[in-house]
Amino acid sequence: MRRYALSLLALACTLASSGQTRTLSGFSEAAARTQFALEEKFDSYLKASNVDHHIKEMSARPHHVGSPGGQAVADYILNQFKSWGYQVEMETFYVLFPTPKERLLEMSGAATYKALLKEPALKEDATSGQFSEQLPTYNCWSADGDVTASLVYVNYGLPEDYDMLDRMGIDVKGKIVIAKYGRSWRGIKPKVAQEHGALGCIIYSDPMDDGYFQGDVYPKGAFKNEYGVQRGSVMDMPIYPGDPLTPGTGATKEAVRLDRKDATNLLHIPVLPISYHDAEPLLRALEGPVAPDGWRGALPFTYHVGPGKAQVHLKLSFNWDMKPLHDIIARMPGSELPDEWIIRGNHHDAWVNGAGDPISGQAAMLEEARAFSELARTGWKPKRTLIYCAWDGEEPGLMGSTEWAETHEAELQQKAVAYINSDGNGRGFLGAEGSHALEPFINEVARDVIDPETGISVLNRRLAVDLVNGKNKKELLAKKTLSIGALGSGSDFSPFIQHIGIPSFNLGYGGEDPGGEYHSIYDSYDDYRRFKDPSFIYGVTLAQTAGRTAMRLADAELLPFDFTSLSRTISGYATELMAFTDQLRDVTALENQVIREKYYALAGDPTVRLLAPPARQEVPYLNFSDLQNTLLSLQQSAARLSAALAKPGLAAGRQLQVNQALYRAEQQLLTRQGLLRRGWYRHSIYAPGFYTGYGVKTLPGIREAIEQRNWKEAQEQIEVAAGVIRQFAAYLDSVTQLVP
Amino acid sequence: MRRYALSLLALACTLASSGQTRTLSGFSEAAARTQFALEEKFDSYLKASNVDHHIKEMSARPHHVGSPGGQAVADYILNQFKSWGYQVEMETFYVLFPTPKERLLEMSGAATYKALLKEPALKEDATSGQFSEQLPTYNCWSADGDVTASLVYVNYGLPEDYDMLDRMGIDVKGKIVIAKYGRSWRGIKPKVAQEHGALGCIIYSDPMDDGYFQGDVYPKGAFKNEYGVQRGSVMDMPIYPGDPLTPGTGATKEAVRLDRKDATNLLHIPVLPISYHDAEPLLRALEGPVAPDGWRGALPFTYHVGPGKAQVHLKLSFNWDMKPLHDIIARMPGSELPDEWIIRGNHHDAWVNGAGDPISGQAAMLEEARAFSELARTGWKPKRTLIYCAWDGEEPGLMGSTEWAETHEAELQQKAVAYINSDGNGRGFLGAEGSHALEPFINEVARDVIDPETGISVLNRRLAVDLVNGKNKKELLAKKTLSIGALGSGSDFSPFIQHIGIPSFNLGYGGEDPGGEYHSIYDSYDDYRRFKDPSFIYGVTLAQTAGRTAMRLADAELLPFDFTSLSRTISGYATELMAFTDQLRDVTALENQVIREKYYALAGDPTVRLLAPPARQEVPYLNFSDLQNTLLSLQQSAARLSAALAKPGLAAGRQLQVNQALYRAEQQLLTRQGLLRRGWYRHSIYAPGFYTGYGVKTLPGIREAIEQRNWKEAQEQIEVAAGVIRQFAAYLDSVTQLVP
Repeated sequence: MRRYALSLLALACTLASSGQTRTLSGFSEAAARTQFALEEKFDSYLKASNVDHHIKEMSARPHHVGSPGGQAVADYILNQFKSWGYQVEMETFYVLFPTPKERLLEMSGAATYKALLKEPALKEDATSGQFSEQLPTYNCWSADGDVTASLVYVNYGLPEDYDMLDRMGIDVKGKIVIAKYGRSWRGIKPKVAQEHGALGCIIYSDPMDDGYFQGDVYPKGAFKNEYGVQRGSVMDMPIYPGDPLTPGTGATKEAVRLDRKDATNLLHIPVLPISYHDAEPLLRALEGPVAPDGWRGALPFTYHVGPGKAQVHLKLSFNWDMKPLHDIIARMPGSELPDEWIIRGNHHDAWVNGAGDPISGQAAMLEEARAFSELARTGWKPKRTLIYCAWDGEEPGLMGSTEWAETHEAELQQKAVAYINSDGNGRGFLGAEGSHALEPFINEVARDVIDPETGISVLNRRLAVDLVNGKNKKELLAKKTLSIGALGSGSDFSPFIQHIGIPSFNLGYGGEDPGGEYHSIYDSYDDYRRFKDPSFIYGVTLAQTAGRTAMRLADAELLPFDFTSLSRTISGYATELMAFTDQLRDVTALENQVIREKYYALAGDPTVRLLAPPARQEVPYLNFSDLQNTLLSLQQSAARLSAALAKPGLAAGRQLQVNQALYRAEQQLLTRQGLLRRGWYRHSIYAPGFYTGYGVKTLPGIREAIEQRNWKEAQEQIEVAAGVIRQFAAYLDSVTQLVP
Repeated sequence: MRRYALSLLALACTLASSGQTRTLSGFSEAAARTQFALEEKFDSYLKASNVDHHIKEMSARPHHVGSPGGQAVADYILNQFKSWGYQVEMETFYVLFPTPKERLLEMSGAATYKALLKEPALKEDATSGQFSEQLPTYNCWSADGDVTASLVYVNYGLPEDYDMLDRMGIDVKGKIVIAKYGRSWRGIKPKVAQEHGALGCIIYSDPMDDGYFQGDVYPKGAFKNEYGVQRGSVMDMPIYPGDPLTPGTGATKEAVRLDRKDATNLLHIPVLPISYHDAEPLLRALEGPVAPDGWRGALPFTYHVGPGKAQVHLKLSFNWDMKPLHDIIARMPGSELPDEWIIRGNHHDAWVNGAGDPISGQAAMLEEARAFSELARTGWKPKRTLIYCAWDGEEPGLMGSTEWAETHEAELQQKAVAYINSDGNGRGFLGAEGSHALEPFINEVARDVIDPETGISVLNRRLAVDLVNGKNKKELLAKKTLSIGALGSGSDFSPFIQHIGIPSFNLGYGGEDPGGEYHSIYDSYDDYRRFKDPSFIYGVTLAQTAGRTAMRLADAELLPFDFTSLSRTISGYATELMAFTDQLRDVTALENQVIREKYYALAGDPTVRLLAPPARQEVPYLNFSDLQNTLLSLQQSAARLSAALAKPGLAAGRQLQVNQALYRAEQQLLTRQGLLRRGWYRHSIYAPGFYTGYGVKTLPGIREAIEQRNWKEAQEQIEVAAGVIRQFAAYLDSVTQLVP
């Protein structure tokens, strides 16, 4: 690794904000000094070689849910925690987990092909040949099915792609669709295909997005080779995650279970992921119109939309077995406040060997936990209880975390101060999403962790990257703090934040570790040490980051929640939504005029079938005033609370009460009934998008109603959100009352 | 072809502006009625079958400069004009025209390959096998050369691509470069390569821009197959076009000629165009960094920048022969004003068979000329002289038109009212660029020609397409007139407008005729009738458009020049330049700050070599006031002239004087000394870009100085332009004085 010259390090110092008198929210000056010293000690225990060792050990065999390898990894983690003196238990749930029984994809007619559906072993990758233990390439939660039909190429398989198909006069009803991976969470593609009447769905990795177009392919480089396949869940997680048979309840042995046919987050059509090697003959055989601009990939022929003369036969069946989930829960009890919990989690199950996803994050978490045990040996104890969770069953649908959170919901809502998640980790820049009341807090953490490549803080490195890649350089040059993203879905934070209202973070490093190994047999130790974090140093950086986050929350005198930050963020979302509605109104009116005056027909090539888009209902003016007024109150309430908390000296009794009130505040943003049509999601500010999956929708009730052009619902949801925020402001006022 | 239902035709009527009382600038109401009747008659003579016949005949054999086929096409055209009663002559010039003697491209070392450099015959294309008469694939005006070196991929080979190479630490000095066709005129690529010290330049057609990524390839579809090669000139036409040995003078037999080594528009390095079949092994053998985003094409591997271990050997030699150019000049003398000329032109030489380029335009022009001869038989005569020109030698460098214009410069500046150019033509939308004093006039023409596919005017169809494809729909919905483009280079209008100041147009149809046949052996009759204009009806539409343009200018009582339109346009260019300078200032200042504060280094991946861009000189404030004040005067002068001309009844004697003054006005925009470093270009408002080639630069002296960040020159050029415009305004005032 190239080392930076002194000039850069000097610069780094000028960049670091307020280097001399670093403050720490929630700590007195004296306590902060103690804390900084502890953190230095903590850092000194962290070893990249341990991260390396953990990754090698835990990725040595395939270890998906219910596998011998999975049991071995769970045992490994349990034993590690045990050896470090944690109170550790294995908590087991019983969940549905389908694995492939039969997989067949073949094409007949004008052209014939039988798909390989197989990733070959590579001599450069030591674990790639463990065929007997590997899960075959498949999408978990595909339906059983045996369908034969012609094929239609649907680009990324998103709603707007079907709008374009409509314009081209192509109907997927009764057909099989083939969609590219990308632009949405994979589960959206078969869901939308099913909504449009498709009989089956094939998802492939196009080399433009995930293959040779991006860079040299594995094993020469890191990118997806022609045989690589992305496995993955296609559960309709935007409805609910976790075991499909126990929505809202822990999947304990004795839990009452749904009949599988009644699970509303399962598909009815078969879905199969394939490589671009297998996709090529299928796509080549398509006829019909040339794929529009933006639909074309990097395979060496002209992409057509289809259908063609060939018939595609897709036959899939699965073992719909119940499997045990092994969550490892390790505790280091708090010395003063054992009933206030700082929860730290990372899953341990993988689709195959999973050196990157999730083991790199799991390894960093173990090293972090070990360092705390070392610190504990020197006499330190966390004031609050630290709980380390190694989740099983994240890959099929956040099952280990969801079932645990559902099982312990009541206790968690009493005791959990925050949940800190990580997942795969690699070389690069800090990624941080989370609860915005903790945004100033996480900025302090990022200020105090040093990027191993440049010697500046990970905060400043992230700001530098945003600046260099960003468009609005003027604004970005002035920006000194990191605006953290909102949490969508895609990892284990989801049940904590969105279902039970625990303040949450998702932390990780990446951006200098691109590749195509994701959910393939090539996500291996050999791949990781070449392309992801060769010196394993970003494992240490993650341990420093999440460790500081956990320790500061565990030891803070006053929990560092800042609701003015949350208030500002929500107001920003509301402003965005108002601007979006105004823009949608203008665009719709103009577009309707263009359609009404038949310009599409006049401009169109009469030899090409491309209908005008349908006119849309004009966008009414929505009444946002209730939301706006409420946000003004929230701003005032948050400011009053901040002012009250800024006064030094909170009486000990009151401190306990105030801290509890602070960390439970996030729960006030939940509604009892949850979001419409998907009541498992109860947070009013953050939710995964119904049609994006991982991608977050902020103020989701309002936003998705507007996006779906349901104006009545949008207006109702404005009132619902205003109600929640009004109640939240009142809650903050009640906390302010607690402060003497 | 699909026919539109009545509703569209009804709509068309509502769209046609002022359908009932159509006015015609320069004609009294009575004269306009006569003119419309004549135009209807003229239209009735035009036959698509004749266009078809001409295209088939003239594209039957390869007919490049100096070939037997070229002589045959010239004779064909001459005989057609003769048979229609035109006064026709063949005017011959003698020019340098290099053709290949030896072409070799091979790769040795780690990988070996010998390039085919050959387009195969196809059974679906009857003329593709005429090998003995075809020019091989080459770039005309490449230097002789025999070079062996490693290869570097330079994207499109533009100055900004070399900036990126600098950032990657890659120097092309002493190497051979390979560039993609596209984004600039081809001649720019070897010129910039030579400026950077490259020994040779290979240009290839990437399938992403020109091949299977765009659509099905020939002969299945219209797009470039793997063997197709784009021939073409790499003369440095932004210096001067025409015979390189006779800049500024006609290349008559007795003309004094430069020594070839003294021609400033010829390259010193060898250049060769190749197919993507031939490019693939060369590109595959490259090593070094992965090509940046936006550099990658659609060949099925990872693009690297190079160099690699392989050596490339490029050996080219040429026959540097003198060849005769046969321009056909056909006249229909004016009945009242024989010394006022309306000149209409289209070239006849092709790189190979050239059914599309240029024969489709030539065929339409012939049919237009025939229709006038039919009209003449009914007793009509044009008031002014119509001159039809079929140019030779356009492909190597606008030679036939340039030598003719240079030879007859003085007479043309006296007599030429306007030059109307066309070139290849196809199915689609009107394209019109030209002198902005004639913008309102050409709008009237476009208003009165009906699009054969939709039944609305070609004006409204063009506006509809601009609207549907445009971003600013609000503005475009309100737009009722066509803003014509400015003339850059790339066809025979260039000497007329830019060298001798004759008001000019370039007219043609296209946009529904994409394909990859350009300058290949597949630009054939078989290709044309399948993919370009299958019913040949747009040949008729072009004849209607250019024919009306010519006839109205020939018969107008008052020539329809509108200098308020020109004044508005130039003011628009000035506003653009001021905004551009301001924006450049902001961007430069910000970018310099980002560089100065070392953000590139902080954000960069230390394992990837990518230097920060160099800081640039800050952009000073330029004094545009002289130009702004002058433009204000021009606006007033133009308005006064328009008002004077709007008064009815110009005495006959004065009318002659006024009309002459009007059509000679454009010459007042020339400067004696021409543009800096390329004095052949004398127009102050329009020039081809020094680094874009075909692409126009408006107010070129100022604009290119700003783009090159030469602030001193920019300020001087503002004064130069202001001086020209001041003089032009005074000229308009003098014309106003002529009006009684």
